[in-house]
Amino acid sequence: MARYRRELEQYLRSLVSAQEPPQLYRMVRYHLGWEDADGRPVDAGGKALRSSFCLLTCEAAGGDRWQALPAAAAVELVHNFSLVHDDIQDGDAERHHRPAVWKLWGEAQAINAGDAILALAHLAVLKLAEEGVRETAVIEAGRVLSERTLEMVEGQTLDISFEERLDVDLPAYTEMIERKSGALFDCALHLGALVAGADAALVRRLGNVGRSLGTAFQIRDDMLSVWGDESVTGKPRGADIRRRKKSLPVVYALNETKGALRDDLRAIYAKPELTDADVALIARDLEETGARDYCARLASERKDVALAELDQLMLRPGPANELREAAEFLLEREF
Amino acid sequence: MARYRRELEQYLRSLVSAQEPPQLYRMVRYHLGWEDADGRPVDAGGKALRSSFCLLTCEAAGGDRWQALPAAAAVELVHNFSLVHDDIQDGDAERHHRPAVWKLWGEAQAINAGDAILALAHLAVLKLAEEGVRETAVIEAGRVLSERTLEMVEGQTLDISFEERLDVDLPAYTEMIERKSGALFDCALHLGALVAGADAALVRRLGNVGRSLGTAFQIRDDMLSVWGDESVTGKPRGADIRRRKKSLPVVYALNETKGALRDDLRAIYAKPELTDADVALIARDLEETGARDYCARLASERKDVALAELDQLMLRPGPANELREAAEFLLEREF
Repeated sequence: MARYRRELEQYLRSLVSAQEPPQLYRMVRYHLGWEDADGRPVDAGGKALRSSFCLLTCEAAGGDRWQALPAAAAVELVHNFSLVHDDIQDGDAERHHRPAVWKLWGEAQAINAGDAILALAHLAVLKLAEEGVRETAVIEAGRVLSERTLEMVEGQTLDISFEERLDVDLPAYTEMIERKSGALFDCALHLGALVAGADAALVRRLGNVGRSLGTAFQIRDDMLSVWGDESVTGKPRGADIRRRKKSLPVVYALNETKGALRDDLRAIYAKPELTDADVALIARDLEETGARDYCARLASERKDVALAELDQLMLRPGPANELREAAEFLLEREF
Repeated sequence: MARYRRELEQYLRSLVSAQEPPQLYRMVRYHLGWEDADGRPVDAGGKALRSSFCLLTCEAAGGDRWQALPAAAAVELVHNFSLVHDDIQDGDAERHHRPAVWKLWGEAQAINAGDAILALAHLAVLKLAEEGVRETAVIEAGRVLSERTLEMVEGQTLDISFEERLDVDLPAYTEMIERKSGALFDCALHLGALVAGADAALVRRLGNVGRSLGTAFQIRDDMLSVWGDESVTGKPRGADIRRRKKSLPVVYALNETKGALRDDLRAIYAKPELTDADVALIARDLEETGARDYCARLASERKDVALAELDQLMLRPGPANELREAAEFLLEREF
């Protein structure tokens, strides 16, 4: 999946590199994985999943994938803006084995870093005009980017509000992750197809494929947060449980199990503060409920919906196949 | 100046009103001054200064001011996004006599409220296309909005970084406020002229007029933060001093005064924590240095630069006069 990472990074660097003041852009370059905290070059960038989907979709829909680079960069920047702010909101001190931006430069400056990355995303998407994309499509791309960003923030708001609730059921959870994670994957594929000049129906259907993939991605993320290998995910296991996140394993256990186990869980969540022992107990209970199989099945169903939709579309076979492989990777990944 | 407030609010409401989930949009409506914390209607909106400048400039440059409404709304939204995040960053518990968003809903959700308002701003500006603005100009408007937003975040980053420094001189201060406050006023006038179809030189010069006005506005703001009437400004006097903000009165006192007074100030700022007595002492010292006259003179000079530039431009006399009156208001305002 990381096959376009180099080209993407090169493009992103052209947007960010010479900017002033250093107080702001050193945070941006650090978060994007190009520099360590002291400004020395490193190679610690993310998976560039969403941008790869954007470029592949452009090609699959008959376009030139490099024409979609500004859109792919914009999607990647929106994703990274959300990570910087999420880490502040969740109090997560680490991301991918490195201190979070707020941990190094404080919350106030980290808010600025996120805000700047979001502004850069909007600058990036309008650069489609420089790639010869017709103006109507550029404006539409900017509109879709903003709308999906807004949806993502709506999802993030729900996610945080769920921490205080015990009554989050599967429909509420699904609505939340469709916005929090589905919307930006939708955006990635939608913009790729739009740049390719696909007709409105194909653009919309590819966006929907992206939305299904994004929800599958998030379910996998939820699984990794409970059962993942910390040394691979770079995120302490149990952190989400402690923060009372209503991840899918927890939603399942609170809604679909009965009797003592469920009462147990509810009693623990009713406590004002969760201890290490509580977190361990919840993790063990989740194991016993069969939540892991349930999550894996749901993620797989979502992916299958996406692939079935993909099969019905008129696409270039080569890149369409790569899209399928990328979709499979979403559910196999360990980080 | 508030003459277009009603039309602006009506337009903003059309963008925000029916949105879901309520957890997010109640914060947005509260911050925009349309609702109290319980969702009951109130009328507590801001001065809508920047959007008024945008609409007036459109008219002065020969356009139809209502065509610029999406741009004016976008500028107002960017301004409000920055206020929501600023209050978190500065730990300001009140704004305009009301609790800040973070004080009511917590920092994590307030970050979301700001992020959403910024995304709405980018949605708004692209709606210029629906008002019949030609597509090249719509894309340019989106680009300028993002660029000026980025500049504003750069200025905010500098402003926060200055809190830890004693060596902030007038050039450093000026660079900071040109970005933090000048850039968005620049944007307001620039977009107004762009929508009017003015030529590139006129658009740029009106943007520069805006930038000068924005810096004059900020100097007045700095004065009000030290000498303003709390019951009018809605902001506790001395809060900026306590946070070691390098407002212009402080920059003047640290750089332009000599002897005991300056040593005094530097000794106080060297303390790890400022007490009420320290803040009172600094405020008294600032009074004695002549900082007030200095600030008033500098603000007035900036305004005069703007008005002199305005006099050289080919504009409709009526709205150009209103622009002049609005510029005067910036320096007379008490809140």
